Amino acid sequence: MASLSTQPYKGTRDYYPEDKRVQDYIFNTWRKVVERYGYQEYGAPTLEPVELYAAKSGEELVGEQTYQFKDRGDRTVAIRPEMTPSISRMVAARRQELGYPARLYSIANFMRYERPQRGREREFWQLNADIFGVDSVRADAEIIEIADDVMKSFGAKDEMYTIRVNHRGLVDAVMKNYLGLDKEKAHKLIKLLDKKDKMSADDFAKAAAEIVEKKAVLSKLSTLVRVKTLDEMPEELQKTDAFSQLSDLLDNLKSAKITNAKFDMTLMRGFDYYTGMVFEIFDLHPDNNRAMFGGGRYDGLVGLFGVDSVATVGFAPGLTSTELFLKSHKLLPKLLPATEIGIVVIDDKVDEAMAIARELRSEGVNTEVDYTGRKLDKQIKALVKKDVPYMLFVGSKEVQEEIYTFKDVNTTDEEKLSLERVISRVKDHRSKSINPDPDDDIFSEE
Amino acid sequence: MASLSTQPYKGTRDYYPEDKRVQDYIFNTWRKVVERYGYQEYGAPTLEPVELYAAKSGEELVGEQTYQFKDRGDRTVAIRPEMTPSISRMVAARRQELGYPARLYSIANFMRYERPQRGREREFWQLNADIFGVDSVRADAEIIEIADDVMKSFGAKDEMYTIRVNHRGLVDAVMKNYLGLDKEKAHKLIKLLDKKDKMSADDFAKAAAEIVEKKAVLSKLSTLVRVKTLDEMPEELQKTDAFSQLSDLLDNLKSAKITNAKFDMTLMRGFDYYTGMVFEIFDLHPDNNRAMFGGGRYDGLVGLFGVDSVATVGFAPGLTSTELFLKSHKLLPKLLPATEIGIVVIDDKVDEAMAIARELRSEGVNTEVDYTGRKLDKQIKALVKKDVPYMLFVGSKEVQEEIYTFKDVNTTDEEKLSLERVISRVKDHRSKSINPDPDDDIFSEE
Repeated sequence: MASLSTQPYKGTRDYYPEDKRVQDYIFNTWRKVVERYGYQEYGAPTLEPVELYAAKSGEELVGEQTYQFKDRGDRTVAIRPEMTPSISRMVAARRQELGYPARLYSIANFMRYERPQRGREREFWQLNADIFGVDSVRADAEIIEIADDVMKSFGAKDEMYTIRVNHRGLVDAVMKNYLGLDKEKAHKLIKLLDKKDKMSADDFAKAAAEIVEKKAVLSKLSTLVRVKTLDEMPEELQKTDAFSQLSDLLDNLKSAKITNAKFDMTLMRGFDYYTGMVFEIFDLHPDNNRAMFGGGRYDGLVGLFGVDSVATVGFAPGLTSTELFLKSHKLLPKLLPATEIGIVVIDDKVDEAMAIARELRSEGVNTEVDYTGRKLDKQIKALVKKDVPYMLFVGSKEVQEEIYTFKDVNTTDEEKLSLERVISRVKDHRSKSINPDPDDDIFSEE
Repeated sequence: MASLSTQPYKGTRDYYPEDKRVQDYIFNTWRKVVERYGYQEYGAPTLEPVELYAAKSGEELVGEQTYQFKDRGDRTVAIRPEMTPSISRMVAARRQELGYPARLYSIANFMRYERPQRGREREFWQLNADIFGVDSVRADAEIIEIADDVMKSFGAKDEMYTIRVNHRGLVDAVMKNYLGLDKEKAHKLIKLLDKKDKMSADDFAKAAAEIVEKKAVLSKLSTLVRVKTLDEMPEELQKTDAFSQLSDLLDNLKSAKITNAKFDMTLMRGFDYYTGMVFEIFDLHPDNNRAMFGGGRYDGLVGLFGVDSVATVGFAPGLTSTELFLKSHKLLPKLLPATEIGIVVIDDKVDEAMAIARELRSEGVNTEVDYTGRKLDKQIKALVKKDVPYMLFVGSKEVQEEIYTFKDVNTTDEEKLSLERVISRVKDHRSKSINPDPDDDIFSEE
């Protein structure tokens, strides 16, 4: 029989322990931040009926991007390509029983057919954090405050990213009332604005002229896209509700001491289902200058399930873009495995080593034993490969004296310690490396 | 448009926060225990090429039980129905680079077409913990020691479960040498023994007689199935390697102070791919008398990927059976959400409440604010629905005096506290409820 391939399925990743540690560092940081704001975790199924996505996401995502198939009951199901339809379904199912504001989050994997490329995989992971039941700018501000806190908790500084903010209602007013475009033209212009960052100014101007034929309108548009702050917006747009909400929102962010949020008239994220504020965190690193993640208000989704609608605002950062950001800005700390001590066994003292391991474990120290009977250098080499930070040598002499050779893998230092001292050494080290502070020197340039 | 259903897909579950807390309690207990023994976490893709399962699992699982479909590149893929093929693939891919013994674990979801029933869902979660590269009873014993530690860490007592142990090599010797059966009859008898617990003694005897036609052989079999300890095994079987290994294994478990492990000649778990020791944790609760989970040695899988084989032993407890066990034995503690304080806002003091929330958060206290402007009783009711343990009332009087009404939701007590005292009250409570000890009274009979 031909042997099987060891490669993972196209566009998916194997997470070996060193990769999994990075994933967990990101997941745990997300979790810590959102729980700090009172968000509670939920879980949803991997498969959903395909109608769930068709109702929300439009044709491209469902038709071309989802992994869908017929199950044995002839029902078409999809591996979830995103979380909002599932959590909207769950909120609808318990609309009466939930306590509001319902602050909910999940950390989950999704699948989409994508051409695998840097920062884009077919199976990917996201945090989804949403607040249900609050139709006010307070909730919009909270979501952006949390997104900013996520960035800061990874050690990001204000100058590393900006937060771009816009409002669906303001865009509608611009398209319909200010520029006087019909639906079709408005739709085209929105798509064009969404791509503006990736185009030259000339190409943008040409493409815009094709959509907006009238010169007067084109001139209005060209003024608009140069607007840098809300104050610069044309007066008639300043009279809209959306404008007041955005203005309130930016004030709220100032109270939360968020200084790098700014209005951006060209921000157009997935406008088909957003109903209010939208925002995006944009990486300013020269090698990685791009949108990282975003969110916004989408008050209509819960209502698709035959119940009264529920005001909703949320955001969803991804694992891959976060990892790219952390690596570009050298913010990824050195991450050690959970294993703290590897016992190297000398003179066949396996039973004694096992007894010592049990004692260490009963004191909460994560300990593995090498009972392969191999030579010392092989045992040591294996522990180094596994990134285990400390080694403890157990042989006849050590067992007799109850003093053990303790070695920090990162230094050449060896110490002779009692078991009690070994335990306190490990615990000391642990208290320093839990919740690494970005200003500490454990953040290495990897 | 007809509204969408709020039901999850058949055989899958929605995990609302109160359900997710149970899941996390189980996951975190698993994680804590296996990391205590030096196991490092990995992750694997949701989809794998279907050949991966066909090579290992036999026809039933792949043909009838997997969710499989053709992708857009016409490749047949499956949603993983189990983890061992994926981790064997990953080990094969880095056979030279890994440090051995490689102790690896994952906590992941799987899908199989099953008729949904109590304790069996189409999407289910498992811990998989395996040790690679050790061809000795020490590794077999370590896996069972960890399985037992998992049970104890959930608060289980010895009398609540047994650990049944057997060995593939011993079964082979019984079938071929001791009973003199050919492959086909041996296979049938193994399947029958696997079901023995669920049959009456009479039905078993009748079915056995149909497979084993000779009376002398039948009499040998009936003696065998009554064997309770290794010592009672027929002398010629005691001379096999498998017997010595089992005997060693039970000695090792005694050294680890495991008293409820016993040899069981009728234990036959998935014998197609196990190559050595097999074991099973069996729930002794009268209402839930059944196999919970198990494991064993399977030295052949890594070798299917075109590299030299790697000795492997592991186990895989499931979320659902663990939850049933904990509920039957009333071992599930009262689980609180991560949210610690809900701020109830009086007199429209939202800005002040937000400032207080930020201060609490900066001290590490998980805090949510109700800025809906609703009446007090509505705000309180919502916090109760969300199981938030403490409420803090912020109104004009409180803001002026800097003394806040603090209320434990579970008692009728109200206290007037400074913010500093609020923080220390919450932290005190937290240190008592982290890592709940099964002997503490926070384990309620829910």
